[in-house]
Amino acid sequence: MKTQREKHDRYEVRFSGSGGQGLITAAVVFAEAVGVYDGKHVCQTQSYGPEARGGKSKAEVVISDYPIDYPKALELDLLLAMNQAACDAYFFDLKANGLLVVDSTLVEQYPTSRIISIPFTQIAKEEIGRELVANMVALGAIGLLSGRVDLANLETALLARVPKGTEEMNSKALRRGIEEAKKIDVQNLPRAVMSEEEEL
Amino acid sequence: MKTQREKHDRYEVRFSGSGGQGLITAAVVFAEAVGVYDGKHVCQTQSYGPEARGGKSKAEVVISDYPIDYPKALELDLLLAMNQAACDAYFFDLKANGLLVVDSTLVEQYPTSRIISIPFTQIAKEEIGRELVANMVALGAIGLLSGRVDLANLETALLARVPKGTEEMNSKALRRGIEEAKKIDVQNLPRAVMSEEEEL
Repeated sequence: MKTQREKHDRYEVRFSGSGGQGLITAAVVFAEAVGVYDGKHVCQTQSYGPEARGGKSKAEVVISDYPIDYPKALELDLLLAMNQAACDAYFFDLKANGLLVVDSTLVEQYPTSRIISIPFTQIAKEEIGRELVANMVALGAIGLLSGRVDLANLETALLARVPKGTEEMNSKALRRGIEEAKKIDVQNLPRAVMSEEEEL
Repeated sequence: MKTQREKHDRYEVRFSGSGGQGLITAAVVFAEAVGVYDGKHVCQTQSYGPEARGGKSKAEVVISDYPIDYPKALELDLLLAMNQAACDAYFFDLKANGLLVVDSTLVEQYPTSRIISIPFTQIAKEEIGRELVANMVALGAIGLLSGRVDLANLETALLARVPKGTEEMNSKALRRGIEEAKKIDVQNLPRAVMSEEEEL
């Protein structure tokens, strides 16, 4: 049986959107930062099956101070949705007061008012010059908002994984994401409406 | 409870070696080929923790015709070892008559005579011209030896994931790996010495 501490220690993040948005790369970098550099227990997972069709792609990271018995996400603490289909499909897997982070460039209909919306794709395109690094802008934001990773380690992990010659562009993207997330007042987001379990 | 059929249907592969050898990429391509293109159930996992230190890196793929309840590998059907440390550490996780595939360029001491050794790194360096694609030579071999993926789909999945401009090099590496593996007579490998459970 789990102690209360072990239960609360588990932290689950899902990166979701379309194939080609670099969500697996973002999840791998996040997992390596937390696991290899921060030294916590981490599992990073992709699952494919009949349910994975229809414009959705996902990659998960589960973090714990203790060994992880079940590596798939069960109840999300944080959901990144980089398109509408993923936002619609996965919103219901969030904990009552989990964080929903969407790319406001691509997600138009929000399922809740408790939302953090940042134009990741627009920032990548207009400020960094490559739409492709929207995943790294998002990763920076997720890194900060999760509060579960040392941000210097996140950059180290990113630099170890991106193709040579793209380091500066990717670092810049990550830092812009962190900067955007710093503007968010997480404590003052609306609370979830249905929230029987939320009070600790 | 599981039926016999469901148990036997599960197929587990671990890609292991050093960080920087591209094992996660190889595992992701394999998983996408089987999951997205072949349409089976697949989980692809990386785990990090205190035990993951010491020159070893690993990435796992679990394949099934049925939904996968537990996504980590429990007993390997196939182990790819791209360095000595990984070969030594993970050999014991193989099933009695599982397949051990090593990079003979980098692994010198073999823990068993039941082994498939192919010089992945040497082929990548000397024939393809880039040591970096040793992972894709290995992936081609694993694809064939596992018998669990359509090889055309494996190439499609690879082309969808590698950086632009490197498609031809990566395809060539994959095909060379498939070619090398075709030379192996898997049926006539020595049988495992300790093999109480092997007969079906």
